[in-house]
Amino acid sequence: MQKNFFRVVSPAQFAALLEDFPLLAAESVLLGEAFGRRLAGDFIAPEDLPARDRSCMDGYAVRAADVFGAGEANPAYLERAGEIEIGTIIDAPLAPGECYAIVTGASLPPGADAVVMVEHTQDLGAGTIEIRKSGAPGDHVMLRGEDARASEPVLPSGTLLRAQEIGLLAALGVVEVNVFGKPRVGILSTGDELVPVENAPAPGKIRDVNSHALACLVREGGGEPQSYGLVRDDRTEIEGALNAALAENDVVLISGGSSVGARDYTLAAMEALPDAEILAHGVAISPGKPTILARAGKKAVFGLPGQVTSAQVVMLIFGLPFLARLSGDAGAFSRKPPSVAAELSRNIASKPGREDHVRVRLEERDGLAPLAHPVLGKSGLLRTMLKAHALIRIPADEEGLVAGTIVEARLV
Amino acid sequence: MQKNFFRVVSPAQFAALLEDFPLLAAESVLLGEAFGRRLAGDFIAPEDLPARDRSCMDGYAVRAADVFGAGEANPAYLERAGEIEIGTIIDAPLAPGECYAIVTGASLPPGADAVVMVEHTQDLGAGTIEIRKSGAPGDHVMLRGEDARASEPVLPSGTLLRAQEIGLLAALGVVEVNVFGKPRVGILSTGDELVPVENAPAPGKIRDVNSHALACLVREGGGEPQSYGLVRDDRTEIEGALNAALAENDVVLISGGSSVGARDYTLAAMEALPDAEILAHGVAISPGKPTILARAGKKAVFGLPGQVTSAQVVMLIFGLPFLARLSGDAGAFSRKPPSVAAELSRNIASKPGREDHVRVRLEERDGLAPLAHPVLGKSGLLRTMLKAHALIRIPADEEGLVAGTIVEARLV
Repeated sequence: MQKNFFRVVSPAQFAALLEDFPLLAAESVLLGEAFGRRLAGDFIAPEDLPARDRSCMDGYAVRAADVFGAGEANPAYLERAGEIEIGTIIDAPLAPGECYAIVTGASLPPGADAVVMVEHTQDLGAGTIEIRKSGAPGDHVMLRGEDARASEPVLPSGTLLRAQEIGLLAALGVVEVNVFGKPRVGILSTGDELVPVENAPAPGKIRDVNSHALACLVREGGGEPQSYGLVRDDRTEIEGALNAALAENDVVLISGGSSVGARDYTLAAMEALPDAEILAHGVAISPGKPTILARAGKKAVFGLPGQVTSAQVVMLIFGLPFLARLSGDAGAFSRKPPSVAAELSRNIASKPGREDHVRVRLEERDGLAPLAHPVLGKSGLLRTMLKAHALIRIPADEEGLVAGTIVEARLV
Repeated sequence: MQKNFFRVVSPAQFAALLEDFPLLAAESVLLGEAFGRRLAGDFIAPEDLPARDRSCMDGYAVRAADVFGAGEANPAYLERAGEIEIGTIIDAPLAPGECYAIVTGASLPPGADAVVMVEHTQDLGAGTIEIRKSGAPGDHVMLRGEDARASEPVLPSGTLLRAQEIGLLAALGVVEVNVFGKPRVGILSTGDELVPVENAPAPGKIRDVNSHALACLVREGGGEPQSYGLVRDDRTEIEGALNAALAENDVVLISGGSSVGARDYTLAAMEALPDAEILAHGVAISPGKPTILARAGKKAVFGLPGQVTSAQVVMLIFGLPFLARLSGDAGAFSRKPPSVAAELSRNIASKPGREDHVRVRLEERDGLAPLAHPVLGKSGLLRTMLKAHALIRIPADEEGLVAGTIVEARLV
C-alpha cells in the first residue's frame, strides 16, 4: 500500500493534464434540445437572412436619392405607387420619384433602398406623399444577408448556443444541429462507513453525501450524472465497479479512498484498469489535496477525496471546467468563472506551497464591494460549504491575505 | 381597435405588478430532482448531524484537561486504552490520563473532548503515548449537532438547493423534499407572416424564431416550456389558443400582436379571457415597449413584442426574475443579476422617459475592466443580440452615457 502521495502536481499542471483529454464526439440533436450545448463544426448559413431587404418601420419605401436633403423646410414630394403588406412582393422596380407605403417587416420593392418613418411624412391625397426627412441608403431597412449570408460561416465551432443562437438557427430553418456530446459521468462512493441515504446509519456509520452532491455538480457542469452507489473498501470490488462505470460513461468520479491510508484501495484499483495511467496522485490545493487523476483509455477517472467539502472544491475548481471543455468549451480553463470583487473582512493565513480555496460568506453593502467573511469550521463538517457564497483563491506563493484586500470571490 | 398604448407603466411598476402574483404551490420531489429548486417551508433537521462527536484527524482522542499546556519541551504522557476504528463504539467513559488511538471520522469515546493529531504524538511502547502539543476542548472534533441540530430549522424556506444543501439533506436521510413548483410556461407565436421552422418561407414570410428563443429563456429561468406553435392573426383563434395554454400552464407567453397596429389582436384576446385584467399595455423600456401584461385568474399572461430582440430583452429583464420568483426566489427582482463592471467604449445617447437596455460586446483587457462596445444594428435584425455579451441599462432620467463611464454589464 502506497504510503505517500507519489505524484503531487500543481493546480496548473492538473488543469493541463485535464486539457489533454480529447473533446467528446459530435452528435446531432434537435433544435429544441440544443440550448446550452456547443456547436461542433462551424455553422454555415444555408441561405441569406433576411432573405430579402425588409422594412424595420411603418412608413414609405423610397429611393434614398429622391429624398436626399429633404427636411421640414424643404420637403420632397413623391408619388405613391401602392401599398406593401407583409407577404406582398413587388416585381417592378421603383421608378424615380415614386414610393410605396410599407409596413414593418414587409419586403422592399426592387430599386427602393431606404424607408422613411411614417411620422416624417404626410399623405397629401391624390397619390402625393410629402417627405419631411432626408434618408440615406439602408435607413430603416434590414438588408438581405445582414444577419447571415448563404454559404458563409455564421457561428464558429464551439459557440455556446444561447437563446439568441437558437433563434438564429430557427430563422435559418435548422431543425437538427451538430453539437459536442454531453458528458456522461458515472459516480461511485467508497467507504465501509457509508450507508445509502435512505438507511438509518448504525453507530459510527454515516450516510453517503458525495453521490448526491457530486451529481448536482455534474449537472451544473452540463454533464449527465449516473450514480453507481456505494462500493466496499475492497480493491477488487472497486475495480469491478470502476470498469462498469467506465463502460457506460465518458468520465468517472469515485470519492473516498484517494488518500494514503491503509484502507485506500482506490489508487490500486485505478492502476489495474485496462490501458490505465495514473497522471496525478495529489494536487497542491487545500482543501482537496488527496485527489487522484487517472487516464483509462481516453477517459478520465477522478479519485476524489471522501471528505465532502474537499470533493466539492475539487469539482468546482477542476471538474466543472473539465466537463465544459469536453463538451466543446475550449476556453473553459482560461476563462474566469462567475465572480464578484469583494473586500476581505479579516486576515487569512495560508501555508505557502499550496493553493488555498477559502470559503467566504458575502455581506452586501450599499455602494461598496461586498464584504467577504471567511467561513470557519473544522474540515469534515458540511457547514463551511453550506454557509459559503463564494471561494477565494490564495496562490501557492502567498502566506495569506490581509483584511481589506479586494479579492475575486468565485460564486459557488 | 385600440390605437394607443393605454396603460404604459414604468419598469419598476411592471416589476411590482409581477411581484403581486402568488408563488407556485409546493410539491414534494425526490432528492435527485431537487437540485436548483427552492425549499418550500423551513427544513427542520430530523436528527443531529454529526450524530456523535467525531474525529477530524488521525491521532489520539484525549481529555483536553490532560494535555493542557503540553508541548515539545514538556510533553504529557497518557495511557493508551485502545484503538477506535470507523464503526467502533466505546461505551465506557475515558478515564483521566487515558487516550484512544482514533482515525478520521471515528466516534470519540465518552469523556474525550479533543483529538491530538498523530504528528504531535509518539507511541513510546508499553501502552504509553507521548503528547507534544496542548489541546483545547473541541480541537479536531466535529461536535454532535455542529452541522444541524435535531428539531431545529437548518435551512429556511426559499433556500436555493445547491450541491451543498443537497449534500446536507442526504446526510440527514432526506429522500423527498418540499420545494416550490417549477413554472410550466406555455408559448405561442402570432403573425400571419410566420411559418414553422421546418418550412421554407414563401416570399415575404419568415420563420417563427420567438417560439424557440423564448423556450430557451424559459429554461434559463428554471421553467418548463411547452410550445403551442403558431396562431393566425385572428382574435378568436388567439383567444382559443390562450385558453388552451392557460389550462395546462402557470404562465403564458404570446409573442406578436402586442403593439397598436390594425392587426394586433392579442390585447382583445387577452381581455376576453375568463377573469382577466389588463395590468399593463406598454412598458417604458427600449427595446420592449409593446409588452402587455394580463392577469387571467391567478396566472400571468405576457403579450411580448413580435420583434425577436425586443421579446428577448423583456424576458431577460422581467421574465427570468418572474419565473425565479414564482419558484420561491423572493429576492429575484431585488437581487442584481450576474454582471461585470465594464468601461463604455463610446458615448451612447438615450431618449429620456424610457429605460434603455443597450446591447454590448465585451472586450477583455489585461488588468483593466473589459471594454463594453455598444452593438449597433437595426431593430428587427437578430445580430444585435447575437453579438451581445451583456446589456447595460440607461435609466429613464438620463440622456445617455459618456465614453469611459464604468457601467454594470448584465451578462446575457
